[in-house]
Amino acid sequence: MKKYVYAFGAGTADGDGTMKEVLGGKGAGLAEMCRAGVPVPPGFTVSTEVCNIYFQNNKKVPAEVETQVDAALAQLEERMGQKLGGLENPLLLSVRSGAKFSMPGMMNTILNLGMNDQTVEVVARRTNNPRFAYDCYRRFIQMFGEVAQGIEKEHFDHIFEARKAKAKTKLDTDLTADDLEAVIGDYKKLVQKETGKPFPQDAREQLRMARNAVFGSWWNHKAVYYRKMEKIPDDIGTAANVQAMVFGNMGESSGTGVGFTRDPGSGQKVFYGEYLLNAQGEDVVAGIRTPEPISHLKKQMPKVYGQLVEITTSLEKHYKDMQDFEFTIQEGTLYMLQTRNGKRTGPAAVRIAVEMVEEKLIEKASAVMRVAPSQLDQLLHPVFDPASLKKLSKLTTGIAASPGAAVGRVSFTADGAVVASAKGPVILVRKETTPDDIHGMDVARGILTAVGGKSSHAAVVARGMGRPCIVGAGAIQINAKAGFATVSVGGKTVTIKEGDWISIDGTTADVYAGQAMTKEPDPRSGHLAKFMTWVDEFRGKFGVRANADIPRDAKAARNFGAEGIGLCRTEHMFFAHDRLPHMQAMILARDEKARRKALQKLLPMQRSDFAGLFKAMDGFPVVIRTLDPPLHEFLPKRENLMVDIARLPHATAKEKKEMSDSYGIAVKDLKKQLPELLHRVEELHEFNPMLGHRGCRLGISYPEITEMQARAIFEAAAQVAKKGVKVIPEVMIPLIGSARELEHQKEIVVNVAKEVLAKNGLKNMKYLVGTMIEIPRAAITADKVAEHAEFFSFGTNDLTQTTMGLSRDDYTKFSRLYEDQKVFKADPFGVLDQEGVGVLVEMAVKLGRGKRKDLEVGICGEHGGEPSSVEFCYRVGMDYVSCSPYRVPIARLAAAQAALSKGDKAEMMRTA
Amino acid sequence: MKKYVYAFGAGTADGDGTMKEVLGGKGAGLAEMCRAGVPVPPGFTVSTEVCNIYFQNNKKVPAEVETQVDAALAQLEERMGQKLGGLENPLLLSVRSGAKFSMPGMMNTILNLGMNDQTVEVVARRTNNPRFAYDCYRRFIQMFGEVAQGIEKEHFDHIFEARKAKAKTKLDTDLTADDLEAVIGDYKKLVQKETGKPFPQDAREQLRMARNAVFGSWWNHKAVYYRKMEKIPDDIGTAANVQAMVFGNMGESSGTGVGFTRDPGSGQKVFYGEYLLNAQGEDVVAGIRTPEPISHLKKQMPKVYGQLVEITTSLEKHYKDMQDFEFTIQEGTLYMLQTRNGKRTGPAAVRIAVEMVEEKLIEKASAVMRVAPSQLDQLLHPVFDPASLKKLSKLTTGIAASPGAAVGRVSFTADGAVVASAKGPVILVRKETTPDDIHGMDVARGILTAVGGKSSHAAVVARGMGRPCIVGAGAIQINAKAGFATVSVGGKTVTIKEGDWISIDGTTADVYAGQAMTKEPDPRSGHLAKFMTWVDEFRGKFGVRANADIPRDAKAARNFGAEGIGLCRTEHMFFAHDRLPHMQAMILARDEKARRKALQKLLPMQRSDFAGLFKAMDGFPVVIRTLDPPLHEFLPKRENLMVDIARLPHATAKEKKEMSDSYGIAVKDLKKQLPELLHRVEELHEFNPMLGHRGCRLGISYPEITEMQARAIFEAAAQVAKKGVKVIPEVMIPLIGSARELEHQKEIVVNVAKEVLAKNGLKNMKYLVGTMIEIPRAAITADKVAEHAEFFSFGTNDLTQTTMGLSRDDYTKFSRLYEDQKVFKADPFGVLDQEGVGVLVEMAVKLGRGKRKDLEVGICGEHGGEPSSVEFCYRVGMDYVSCSPYRVPIARLAAAQAALSKGDKAEMMRTA
Repeated sequence: MKKYVYAFGAGTADGDGTMKEVLGGKGAGLAEMCRAGVPVPPGFTVSTEVCNIYFQNNKKVPAEVETQVDAALAQLEERMGQKLGGLENPLLLSVRSGAKFSMPGMMNTILNLGMNDQTVEVVARRTNNPRFAYDCYRRFIQMFGEVAQGIEKEHFDHIFEARKAKAKTKLDTDLTADDLEAVIGDYKKLVQKETGKPFPQDAREQLRMARNAVFGSWWNHKAVYYRKMEKIPDDIGTAANVQAMVFGNMGESSGTGVGFTRDPGSGQKVFYGEYLLNAQGEDVVAGIRTPEPISHLKKQMPKVYGQLVEITTSLEKHYKDMQDFEFTIQEGTLYMLQTRNGKRTGPAAVRIAVEMVEEKLIEKASAVMRVAPSQLDQLLHPVFDPASLKKLSKLTTGIAASPGAAVGRVSFTADGAVVASAKGPVILVRKETTPDDIHGMDVARGILTAVGGKSSHAAVVARGMGRPCIVGAGAIQINAKAGFATVSVGGKTVTIKEGDWISIDGTTADVYAGQAMTKEPDPRSGHLAKFMTWVDEFRGKFGVRANADIPRDAKAARNFGAEGIGLCRTEHMFFAHDRLPHMQAMILARDEKARRKALQKLLPMQRSDFAGLFKAMDGFPVVIRTLDPPLHEFLPKRENLMVDIARLPHATAKEKKEMSDSYGIAVKDLKKQLPELLHRVEELHEFNPMLGHRGCRLGISYPEITEMQARAIFEAAAQVAKKGVKVIPEVMIPLIGSARELEHQKEIVVNVAKEVLAKNGLKNMKYLVGTMIEIPRAAITADKVAEHAEFFSFGTNDLTQTTMGLSRDDYTKFSRLYEDQKVFKADPFGVLDQEGVGVLVEMAVKLGRGKRKDLEVGICGEHGGEPSSVEFCYRVGMDYVSCSPYRVPIARLAAAQAALSKGDKAEMMRTA
Repeated sequence: MKKYVYAFGAGTADGDGTMKEVLGGKGAGLAEMCRAGVPVPPGFTVSTEVCNIYFQNNKKVPAEVETQVDAALAQLEERMGQKLGGLENPLLLSVRSGAKFSMPGMMNTILNLGMNDQTVEVVARRTNNPRFAYDCYRRFIQMFGEVAQGIEKEHFDHIFEARKAKAKTKLDTDLTADDLEAVIGDYKKLVQKETGKPFPQDAREQLRMARNAVFGSWWNHKAVYYRKMEKIPDDIGTAANVQAMVFGNMGESSGTGVGFTRDPGSGQKVFYGEYLLNAQGEDVVAGIRTPEPISHLKKQMPKVYGQLVEITTSLEKHYKDMQDFEFTIQEGTLYMLQTRNGKRTGPAAVRIAVEMVEEKLIEKASAVMRVAPSQLDQLLHPVFDPASLKKLSKLTTGIAASPGAAVGRVSFTADGAVVASAKGPVILVRKETTPDDIHGMDVARGILTAVGGKSSHAAVVARGMGRPCIVGAGAIQINAKAGFATVSVGGKTVTIKEGDWISIDGTTADVYAGQAMTKEPDPRSGHLAKFMTWVDEFRGKFGVRANADIPRDAKAARNFGAEGIGLCRTEHMFFAHDRLPHMQAMILARDEKARRKALQKLLPMQRSDFAGLFKAMDGFPVVIRTLDPPLHEFLPKRENLMVDIARLPHATAKEKKEMSDSYGIAVKDLKKQLPELLHRVEELHEFNPMLGHRGCRLGISYPEITEMQARAIFEAAAQVAKKGVKVIPEVMIPLIGSARELEHQKEIVVNVAKEVLAKNGLKNMKYLVGTMIEIPRAAITADKVAEHAEFFSFGTNDLTQTTMGLSRDDYTKFSRLYEDQKVFKADPFGVLDQEGVGVLVEMAVKLGRGKRKDLEVGICGEHGGEPSSVEFCYRVGMDYVSCSPYRVPIARLAAAQAALSKGDKAEMMRTA
């Protein structure tokens, strides 16, 4: 018979730590801890498979599973010497979710299961602590009611708050046993009213309902959203962990806490955590009471503390990774409830990886695999410029929960943040966050809460997302409904309104009013520098270049470790204020002669741009793309011209002046010249500019443009080379669809190069002429294209658009629908569509190399900085990827990881 | 040593008729005729390869070729008992071009080579005919001057006309020997002036220059244009045929002529041709003197006529095809100068093929291969409706040169025709046409000339192009410069101005003023019907369907032999005047309920359209595509709205009324509603509509649209099926890029089908749900798409646009440049790009069939009616092609030819 239920306890377990797939992360951790002799309350795990069967089987659990559960329960009862629902010594249980991949707070937990009208009295009697017994029961009714019976939380809260008001008390702990008994009575009435039935008294029925409710929570809204965000598959299901209860709420010698073996924010090797005495389960992470730092426990319970340090240290050694653990102290006895590899910020991930190598706990290769490329993002984003902070007023300081600087406008609600984020950066400011706020946290640049500690929901989730976060900023009073908050600063009350700018520093926990300036991080120092050295060791020859159009970006790219420029978009230079008029003159020119005259003015400007790039990239290749966008992009918009022509006869002097300024046409000439301008714009108007007269098609129509650009490139190269800089120009022709196009453009480039280099005595300068592969036909005929191309660079932005017949700009109108319908595995403009676009890329690499063995192949689309896409590029045999400068380290790491593992790396990333 | 020069003559030849590649068509024909004992002036052919070497070798002919030429010349001199440049008995030569494929009149010829100041006197003495000798010499100087020395024709004409004026004569033949001697003197001065050298007297030097000039003419403007038009490769080169002169201008017992063994216009089996006595070479085809019909020769020279009939009849039997021949009679002796398979009109091709089978000259399979699919076009286009002709006044009757009816506006120049053709149909009206007019003939719907016969340039070229043509309409006096023509009709002078409408019937040779109505041809009678029966025998199971949106087109398609509808575009129905408002209401609806209400109004309209299609296609499948275009196509244009909103405040009452009418908004509501309408139009505005929110993306966004359309389809199917019609609906989902999209839409269709069919007791009605493959990604993931698709239909219009990253509409802006640069082998929107798009098509067929063995595969893009594309579709294993109704017979023939030959069919076509 197939095994669906796995028992653990008493130093033994059916499963072990490797069985995450079957037992979920939590179940596997419990089994492993039992086997390692860690004190863990015994229990059993109902496997993830049962969850899937449950949903496939019309929400029913097959009889053979129930039989196994019964057997496991019997064994557990025997181990505990207790009976579920028993009137002698009743067994109480916790029922918790736990999937293969950690999804903190997304799914449900039920504690104190087994409580009913009779057992509560037995517990009261046996513990001699009626208040504890009633507290457990009322918690159980509420959790069970919410999770298994779908009753809204606020109904329970209402009853509880009413009772507190009646008792004239503020703290839950001030309520007496009688108060709680009254609460229980009201709760049971509520359940009867909401479900039409009394609260279930049969403990086995409670267990079945609770287990199924845990399975059911797999598909709740926040869990689905979280999986989508974290790219966790929907079909892996959750396990249900049933475990004997231990109680942290049995008085001041009891407690509960969570911790990390190292600081998950900074990575520093300090014992890190929080606890609350006389508290149970979710009290710590819920952020309702602000917990104590773990160091206090050393004073309060030195023995327990020592035991905790010892156990968790050995767990870290066992798992060879930083552990995130939960524990409960029941009347002075320590129980470990959970351990798992802890989530951490990017900086922490790097520091821990580096220090663990130094501690000889792990190898360098493991260290490199331990940091998710996307985590580096946090180390690479700007920090506040201290000078600019001086000009702002500091509002308050909270608890630093996730490092990094963020600037944005205040939103007091998650929904509001989603709306506002469309217009600009947002900081989500909440009293506390709950899993229902997850969509708001996702869009926010930073998160600030008034209550909660480093393990609160806000802190945990923000670190996972890599968002700067400050929690527990208790000075802030938030009135979300009214849309403002107040904070007392030096005795004066400052009001922060929805939409106001604030700046938060997740490292220092300081909150500022206004917009701070940010500063680039320095990726060449500290742990990161050491880490990146190892990354590059494993990365080997696979190159990482940057997309950069101007010398400043090129310099930044070098700082980030770019080994060349993979894409310089020359047209970006033409949009500059001083150049646009010449560009427009070129476009409006009616013949080649006039066009050449305008081009002649652009030549020195381009030349100096290129010289700057070559200098910054001394010794590395610089790929320069010839003019790409359709010419109408440089002219005024057609519809604006049409409207202004219609308005002109009735326009006021002021309006005419505005038109004159905007078109650069004298007021008196507007009447004549606007229609002329419109005429040319109409000539250039396109139905589908993306598929129109652009790229090499322009260069073929106006060879003099390509000629000018080639001249600017090689004159700049010669000028800089003469000063001792090693220049490696690579001229890239865009939008090739047929080998003939490239042949045509290459001839122009080569002729100019020969002439300019000969004139400068630099005949031996090595340069390449190649093409972007960004049209399916180029990929399909890549063998023929490679007859002329010395390199390919995949322009996966356009290649995705053409291969999918999907305009990136227009897709936004229905992308949300498509995501909901799971039409594509991921956003194809963020993550390379390997199933579709990838097939063409692979085909092109094979065909191209088949024709020209030493063909240089790279990618310069935005996918070049996305880890799974980088791994793909490595796998199909590209020579390099190119991405935006600040993503260069991410690409370097992704490349190293690709080199290290051909296996299920994606999985390792998620587990980390 | 490699053989470059092939001699022929005296009943023997080095080459033969199969060697067109090496000898060109003319050279191969001459060799074959010699071998068959046909009287042919001896000579030799310099191979096409030498032409290519000449151009590769910097316009120099290698020494070994010269050596072979010298040897061949020596042999020829021996055969003729004459010497080139000899003073005893000088040999005179013709030098003619001749490529593998016939390019009539496109390249150059030089006659009478060998003439010089001395030999002319010898010829005069030996023939005792000084006038003849001087005439030969002056013709030679002019031809040589024009062709080999690049002197403009008009300079020669000027001298000649001046002499005629001086001699007070109108006819060339009235000039005396003295006159001609004077002309020669002036010509020689002209040559001295233009070239700086005297006219070359060395006959061998003349030969070398003439031969090279013939090679050079391969690249002259008209030849290049003709090759592009006829899709003849540029790299095959022309041969140069050097042949002893025979003279048709040695008096009234001499002459020259051309002819066909059957009527090339109608195909009728009559001996057909024209001749001129006392004339040489180009006089007949140039159309300068109107030649005599060949039947007159029977009276004038019965013996020669009998010999000519006998020889050409045996040539037809030998080649098993209608022959196009040239002959010269020198003082009563007949010489054949050329024979080749004759060009013919579409109707003639069909009739000749059918009758040759009946004569047991060829097999049915050969007959089917003999007609180029494109030639059928001429049999399928409309003819004049006799009733409508009665209302027009007949202007004149000329000579019927190429059949078919044409209506258009008059253009008197080729350039004018090109300009005017952009605006509407054009009839090119010329005194005579020359190869310089070819671009005008290409764009004209029909051609009318005032002079020339059935073998004139206009007639030959028009037949080749399939353009209706009337020649020799001598009553018309044309003043091209002034832009009008006059014709005397019943004593009154009628003026035809540039731009006036005329109608010409190339079958009856009648010319009418005004626009005649045309009538559909009946493809089910006569020779064509018999021919198509054979075609279908060879075509086998490969199907041909038609693209038709309305019942009328569906009926026409059945007449043309369509076996079903391959594409019904449902949106075309929505643009109808009575439906557009409902469509707009649907689009402007703010919620699903309002949308459904509008759709409910469209449902009965669609249902009745579909019922009509099903009825017309009784027993055949009907593929109906769900809504495809972006919704904004149904709304007013954004820029118009913007302009009207700008105009509104100052608009006059009349202007407001116009706006009100155009938008269907009351005048008083314009101010409020125009901005609202613009707002919705803005919401729907797209940057690249081709790649935007359309096709299945609409159906996924608004499932109720797909649902309504499915309902209309199956309700119509049920309604018609109940009346005994066999209905086979195939529902096609457009723009699939991912299998998931199809799965989504298919579910809707299948649910509706089940419901509707069950309700009508038609549960067993067979129907298919499938998809268009029109996005590269769909082709690449075709295996996954085929999990849901029961059929594929390649939408090669969009597939070409996306695969090439090229918008069809925007391509027009630079397509001419791309054609000149030969970026693609042919217009990719006319001829399927097999190298690029075809690779995806083939991939999709393989992947699709690999997943689903019985997957039905067809094509519904416009390429479905283009012969080479049909052949491709057959080759990759499609089940059918679908094209516009009138191209159905063309597709049937192309399919049959594909089935008959896997080889170089394209070549056979061109040779035919």
